[in-house]
Amino acid sequence: MTVQDYMLTLGKQARAASRQMASADTGKKNAALLAIADAINSARDTIAAENARDMEAGRANGLDAALLDRLELTPERIDGMIEGLNQVAALPDPCGEITDLKYRPSGIQLGKKRTPLGVVGIIYESRPNVTVDAASLCLKSGNAAILRGGSEAIHSNKAVAVCIAAGLKAAGLPETAVQVVETTDRAAVGELITMTKYVDVVVPRGGKSLIERISADARVSVIKHLDGICHVYVDKTANLDKAFNIVINSKTHRYGVCNAMETMLVDEAIAADFLPRAAKEFAARGVELRGCEKTVALLTASDIPVVAALEEDWDTEYLAPILSIKLVANMDEAIEHINNHGSHHTDALVSENYTLARKFLTEVDSSSVMINASTRFADGFEYGLGAEIGISTDKIHARGPVGLEGLTSQKWIVFGDGHIRN
Amino acid sequence: MTVQDYMLTLGKQARAASRQMASADTGKKNAALLAIADAINSARDTIAAENARDMEAGRANGLDAALLDRLELTPERIDGMIEGLNQVAALPDPCGEITDLKYRPSGIQLGKKRTPLGVVGIIYESRPNVTVDAASLCLKSGNAAILRGGSEAIHSNKAVAVCIAAGLKAAGLPETAVQVVETTDRAAVGELITMTKYVDVVVPRGGKSLIERISADARVSVIKHLDGICHVYVDKTANLDKAFNIVINSKTHRYGVCNAMETMLVDEAIAADFLPRAAKEFAARGVELRGCEKTVALLTASDIPVVAALEEDWDTEYLAPILSIKLVANMDEAIEHINNHGSHHTDALVSENYTLARKFLTEVDSSSVMINASTRFADGFEYGLGAEIGISTDKIHARGPVGLEGLTSQKWIVFGDGHIRN
Repeated sequence: MTVQDYMLTLGKQARAASRQMASADTGKKNAALLAIADAINSARDTIAAENARDMEAGRANGLDAALLDRLELTPERIDGMIEGLNQVAALPDPCGEITDLKYRPSGIQLGKKRTPLGVVGIIYESRPNVTVDAASLCLKSGNAAILRGGSEAIHSNKAVAVCIAAGLKAAGLPETAVQVVETTDRAAVGELITMTKYVDVVVPRGGKSLIERISADARVSVIKHLDGICHVYVDKTANLDKAFNIVINSKTHRYGVCNAMETMLVDEAIAADFLPRAAKEFAARGVELRGCEKTVALLTASDIPVVAALEEDWDTEYLAPILSIKLVANMDEAIEHINNHGSHHTDALVSENYTLARKFLTEVDSSSVMINASTRFADGFEYGLGAEIGISTDKIHARGPVGLEGLTSQKWIVFGDGHIRN
Repeated sequence: MTVQDYMLTLGKQARAASRQMASADTGKKNAALLAIADAINSARDTIAAENARDMEAGRANGLDAALLDRLELTPERIDGMIEGLNQVAALPDPCGEITDLKYRPSGIQLGKKRTPLGVVGIIYESRPNVTVDAASLCLKSGNAAILRGGSEAIHSNKAVAVCIAAGLKAAGLPETAVQVVETTDRAAVGELITMTKYVDVVVPRGGKSLIERISADARVSVIKHLDGICHVYVDKTANLDKAFNIVINSKTHRYGVCNAMETMLVDEAIAADFLPRAAKEFAARGVELRGCEKTVALLTASDIPVVAALEEDWDTEYLAPILSIKLVANMDEAIEHINNHGSHHTDALVSENYTLARKFLTEVDSSSVMINASTRFADGFEYGLGAEIGISTDKIHARGPVGLEGLTSQKWIVFGDGHIRN
């Protein structure tokens, strides 16, 4: 069978399964999630053995340490997969909710009903635990899923796929509701993202280059996450203790995450009071500082190591212990910087001023806008979504963390009694 | 200036204007809409004269009668433009609404705020009144717009653009909030749909080939409307009088519209009672009937003209007085036909059965699903959206008629008091 035929078969099966999933009741979907958790628990040894094959091949192929770490399924990570399934089972079912049901002057009764998207394609890299995360979210939201993991995790993913199929079957749902692409041929991705008849939306999870490539070639709708260039702006009315805690937490809580602060903006009026204190702490934590001209002057005078930021620093997602710092004259300058250099992901203001807080909320064009809180809160779990399929930097459909609701849409429903249009 | 540079200039100006529009208050936006209406009223003679130039050129270039009709701005159509502006001014402003504001266990207060998309590109064909419709919806929803109408309407569109700019200026809003592309070079469209930095979403309005071409080439998100292959399924429990009225209205109220019925599905059990009666009325109204084998047998026996439907008839949007008819054994067969051959636009059931009505609502995967009502109700005005920028056949973002809310999105907002993540 050619890759094209293979993917077409998966697509057709997924479309058929999606119809059954759309009318599967909540109890059945939860039963499947719990049965998958059981199956994974029972298959721990097999999963570990298959994962060991991937790890061995990865080492032989010279994968770097970070990639190998993501590839590994430790017992704790298998526990995490099981725990995740239980959590998703406990979440409310988004499907079927009817809202805004009202009579129109014509006499028809009009409302909206929440409904699955249909077939969701997920394209991800080396983490095999994403297979279970993605499957569980798609399943609970009533969608069929086609999962395409990295080729280096193929044995792990196949072993997990067996457990998912067993769980679906045990609950009386179609095994084809979740299909793992079992070829490592790259052409499979090209098919997946262009089968508009069989796939409704694609979610790429991975590095920026993967996502850009997929967005460029896709004909199917894409829910995508590009950069997280997040800012914290410390206004002159800020409580400097809150500001200190927030900037340190936003930058240093974790470095390699998309909701970490990459650029700190500080009002010139409080720079002398605030900047050396914060910079000293950053330096103590090993964060390299790159500042605008005034920042360099101020920190150098305080004997704190700092280098001059280049223009490109303002547009860079470091994902590392590096921070760019810029002094601004006022909030307008800060907002302009954020909207022009940020990635519309998450941006925070530290301020005690009511009017400025309202202004920041309205004018900053980002998927999460925060007042006096750490950017690190922009996360599906912290937002109570239970889990997230990704964080969208798109403007249409769901913005920011995408949970179960983001995998659904709404259709219009009309109840009449023989109504016709005049 | 090259087309590329020209479009880039429009894009940059639109992006800058979109920032101002996002924080423009409702009163100012409404003032602009009313000022545009005044400007159009004052410029009736100029608009008519410029439209006459387009009409003359159109006749000289051999445009067909339907196209010329759409191109013409009669005094009534100018009245319609003014009336539309007044209606949009009277609609509630979707922007800024904050919903679901709740405390999370971490102590942060999390909600969602409705926000404009940013810059909206509209690509349409010969109707110059779309220029005002699109401008008014984008303006009211706080977006900046770049409007690209058909080259045959260029003088009309430029004349209308002058009025829009005057109205925006009078209300103290940036004139660049609505820009009409003033080159007829086709390359302008290619630029518009790929300027991801300056355009957030594109709405093509026109024939299927235009929309398919734009969807294929776009890098910007597209809200698109392809076919309207709508069905009415008459179940065996239907009240046959309601069914009669609904199918006649769905098909014959207007033929060239996307929410007209193209295929009628009838339960075999009531076919003998229902079909000849309905078919006789269709025939009397000049509707050509194309039926499945059983339909042909039944109608031929009743001396009603009918031809045999080809396989492709089930996938055709006639937009004409033609109807395909198929008898089905039960609702499962009807739903399968609708989901496989329909266009996920609008489909209706006529039935008195509670369980079947629930099943139809859940299993039919269309943007509007109706019980005992005419498909012709699927329309922005009938749904109370006030006006529509289009009808989306996509599954993500807005489905079905897209009004002001469909031109907005929601961002997450977080209020804290110095909260940091543990």
